[in-house]
Amino acid sequence: MPYTSPVDDFRFILDHVVGFDAVAATERYAEATPDMVSAILTEAGKMCDSVLAPLNRAGDLTPAKLENGVVRTSPGYAEGYRAIADGGWVGMAADPEHGGMGLPMTVTTAVNEMMGGACLALQLNPLMTQAEIEALEHHASPELQALYLPKLVSGEWCGTMNLTEPQAGSDVGALRTKAEPKGDGTYAISGQKIYITWGDNDFSDNVVHMVLARLPDGAPGTKGISLFLVPKYIPDADGKPGEANSLRVVSLEHKMGIHGSPTAVMEYDGATGWLVGEPHAGMAAMFTMMNNARLGVGGQAIGVAEAATQAALAYAMDRKQGKAGGSGAIVEHADVRGMLARMRAETFAARAIALACARAMDMGRADDSSAARARAAFLTPIAKAYGTETGISVADLGIQVHGGMGFIEETGAAQFLRDVRITAIYEGTNGIQAMDLVGRKLMDGGEAAFALLDEIEAGAEAARGSLPDLAEPVWQAAEALREATDWLLARDPAERFAGALAYLRAFARVLGGHMHLRAAMAGDGKRKRLAAFYIARMLPEHAAHLAALRAGAGSVMALGAEDLGV
Amino acid sequence: MPYTSPVDDFRFILDHVVGFDAVAATERYAEATPDMVSAILTEAGKMCDSVLAPLNRAGDLTPAKLENGVVRTSPGYAEGYRAIADGGWVGMAADPEHGGMGLPMTVTTAVNEMMGGACLALQLNPLMTQAEIEALEHHASPELQALYLPKLVSGEWCGTMNLTEPQAGSDVGALRTKAEPKGDGTYAISGQKIYITWGDNDFSDNVVHMVLARLPDGAPGTKGISLFLVPKYIPDADGKPGEANSLRVVSLEHKMGIHGSPTAVMEYDGATGWLVGEPHAGMAAMFTMMNNARLGVGGQAIGVAEAATQAALAYAMDRKQGKAGGSGAIVEHADVRGMLARMRAETFAARAIALACARAMDMGRADDSSAARARAAFLTPIAKAYGTETGISVADLGIQVHGGMGFIEETGAAQFLRDVRITAIYEGTNGIQAMDLVGRKLMDGGEAAFALLDEIEAGAEAARGSLPDLAEPVWQAAEALREATDWLLARDPAERFAGALAYLRAFARVLGGHMHLRAAMAGDGKRKRLAAFYIARMLPEHAAHLAALRAGAGSVMALGAEDLGV
Repeated sequence: MPYTSPVDDFRFILDHVVGFDAVAATERYAEATPDMVSAILTEAGKMCDSVLAPLNRAGDLTPAKLENGVVRTSPGYAEGYRAIADGGWVGMAADPEHGGMGLPMTVTTAVNEMMGGACLALQLNPLMTQAEIEALEHHASPELQALYLPKLVSGEWCGTMNLTEPQAGSDVGALRTKAEPKGDGTYAISGQKIYITWGDNDFSDNVVHMVLARLPDGAPGTKGISLFLVPKYIPDADGKPGEANSLRVVSLEHKMGIHGSPTAVMEYDGATGWLVGEPHAGMAAMFTMMNNARLGVGGQAIGVAEAATQAALAYAMDRKQGKAGGSGAIVEHADVRGMLARMRAETFAARAIALACARAMDMGRADDSSAARARAAFLTPIAKAYGTETGISVADLGIQVHGGMGFIEETGAAQFLRDVRITAIYEGTNGIQAMDLVGRKLMDGGEAAFALLDEIEAGAEAARGSLPDLAEPVWQAAEALREATDWLLARDPAERFAGALAYLRAFARVLGGHMHLRAAMAGDGKRKRLAAFYIARMLPEHAAHLAALRAGAGSVMALGAEDLGV
Repeated sequence: MPYTSPVDDFRFILDHVVGFDAVAATERYAEATPDMVSAILTEAGKMCDSVLAPLNRAGDLTPAKLENGVVRTSPGYAEGYRAIADGGWVGMAADPEHGGMGLPMTVTTAVNEMMGGACLALQLNPLMTQAEIEALEHHASPELQALYLPKLVSGEWCGTMNLTEPQAGSDVGALRTKAEPKGDGTYAISGQKIYITWGDNDFSDNVVHMVLARLPDGAPGTKGISLFLVPKYIPDADGKPGEANSLRVVSLEHKMGIHGSPTAVMEYDGATGWLVGEPHAGMAAMFTMMNNARLGVGGQAIGVAEAATQAALAYAMDRKQGKAGGSGAIVEHADVRGMLARMRAETFAARAIALACARAMDMGRADDSSAARARAAFLTPIAKAYGTETGISVADLGIQVHGGMGFIEETGAAQFLRDVRITAIYEGTNGIQAMDLVGRKLMDGGEAAFALLDEIEAGAEAARGSLPDLAEPVWQAAEALREATDWLLARDPAERFAGALAYLRAFARVLGGHMHLRAAMAGDGKRKRLAAFYIARMLPEHAAHLAALRAGAGSVMALGAEDLGV
């Protein structure tokens, strides 16, 4: 499946839509000049197009498999992983002290999206390692950092996250994995973990598991959980992997998609682990990993949306059918053109929102701005949930553009949907993202939300002169969202949760209008036409979401489980 | 995957929502008394639950395969097919003169939905045969009817439809398959056909292909196409299959879903065929097959929606997680409850619309009512496109309800989505359905549309007294749809086509409100609560669709193909 990394779109969004110049103006990211960023995106893009994209279908056809306790990865994955590691893309966000590039999230988000668009199943591997690097940077002892970070940053070793157990999914607090102090500063970890992404591989020298477990004196629930580092092979003081630890892959799951990514059931049987952070503070450390990983998962799905859009457009421009005008290709049909336009407009909006979130993360870190941190926190669940819903809906439209061929696996259109479907589930289901948004993220009394709405309305005001037909609907939509936010803030938690996803979707729709309007203001006729399409045909959906929100919890919770059968 | 046929829901909809009593009051369907219909639905439902549903996953895991030119079907499919045939369900709509039950479409639509919900891949087989039976009843010579219909009706032989060729998909007129007169009243058929559903099997004594081909004097395009009957084995005068015809299965497709249904590339190499209907009138005959098959495909997807809803509800009632109240199961969470409510409300609405369409077909036939025929024609593309979009969106929600387990194939949640995805494509993509609706079906100046809107508004008026909060939004939505219909009728074809799917979706949303309101008026608290949910949270979506419609063709067609890349 040919894939072309959308380098120019990233450049345009950074320069003209999300204001990357503010990031580059900070001392921390002073090296991220426009030329440097262009060079990085171009270099990463080349690898994605030429090395990773050709592996996408191979991974689907030949899944990772477990043979005699050893995971065998898909054909070409070892070489693909080597290209990622050698390019420095595993550790691109990591501290240069440990060998990283120290790039801002705005740039790493773009690179991760490109890698995900090219080969989602393989890109999942470095995404996990990146999260582990971040957790170790924040919470591990200097000794652990010195031993593990250089190997993870270089990609010699890979990382995993071990949260879920059969009885403990979204409810992590129910976990039963135990950690017994061994008296030498290490711990014996015992328990079973499921859904472990890239739980093992045959191309890295070690696999370093981050495992949530409970100490003997750990309280029940989330407050008694600690985080442990549990390597597959125990390294000596020089970082040379030695003795095999007491852990194993029990089985791999048969999944709908991302076949190239081995999803493992892991068994820890008194495996040696090291505490990361304080005892009983594992959830906080895990949230550090998960928070940015959520943005990363949104980016994965946007990458798939990009790939699906490119594939559908190429098919529609090539396929001749019926009495279409112009080229005679099906892209001339209004129905097909409309689907492709929606795919492109949605992909752009989701990408811009993800990059705006990343930019806020960068400003929060580089500028010590609490307003930026609040914005990042507010945008993260939106970027994750809307990004992944975009990936799914765009991949679905891609199948439809292909007609009958879309249902035939050879075209790859179906694989995009099968692969991307998981993104709405892992790193916290989209329902959980939405509850985070209307729960925790509105606990500031709506400050972060209103600051965004102010910015959207200011942008619309500024656009009124030159693009009145686009500016007015965006302003109106923001105003409706402002009223809905007031309404929501006055509701109790039950009401908030019942309308959580509707509120998140409405906010994403309006933010998308804002991003398209900014693009139209700065861009050429193409940007203006795409914005006009989005604002006329997609933005109005915000009203349906807000109507669902205002219907309140009663309409949902009045329906008992017994009402939902036949 | 346990599945329980929704017999009670069918009975309720027939009795209280779509007015089946009018069908039973006709002379033609006088035998379809309430007791008879109940007995039929119950009997069919038993077979679906106990025989067909257990085959669903087996077909997914062990696809039909081609071995030495012979199709081997999935484990248990032969027995499943035998149960369908022995129950009389293949020929249930057929004329009793040829062994059929002569049941009204309203009842056969329900039975087909149940079979599709239990095992979509297998049910596709009799659905194809049913369409062929109908075409032969309308267009074949008495001799062909006498020879073929009894065997097809009994299920001893199966039928297929051969339209598509590599260069001729939605554009059937581009086909190249040739028919040469052999001088003895038969024709030599040569050409390649693709996407032939159940192109062969190993459980019926014969396979009877309906093939579109062009006679030597056939004009280019659709006007020069004729329909031929081409049996796998040429029967003698007594209907005993004899000599093998010159046709073969070249290959089977690897598909996203319905693995149990062999999708064949067929090669006809001078195969002996018989003309069905007049020369060059093949498209009309094929439309007879396709028209009711479209309703059947809508019903397939609604069946999958039912099965997916049942599976998700069972999982949500069983799965314990977090601090949910009541049972402690995830069904207590507002997010999960809301997804399940949407699944159930959407499934009901789509089912009621499909049955209303079937009822109009019955009245058009039994009562010779041109108004009923116009209504059936208007509702058919809606029932197909909305029914299939419902199947897809409900199956997708079913995955989400399952969380991580939804992505694991063992649960079956993913299979529902993979299977049902094709229904939005075959028998005319949903885009084509929508163009049919705003093109041909509005050529009456909107008469059929306005008659439906009058009925919806009258229903809302009648409900104002007892259910004012439900009646008013339905009335308002119908009024908005009426204005949009007026607007659409004043537009040229380009504008109509650009908004076609938006109009279809808006119409379906409003019709769904009407059906739920009727159910609420006649039903118990459960029906009222489900209607309240739909009307408060889903009906408002009609406004977003109408806004997209009114955005017009300009917003779409202004975007050139070059605007859609990156």
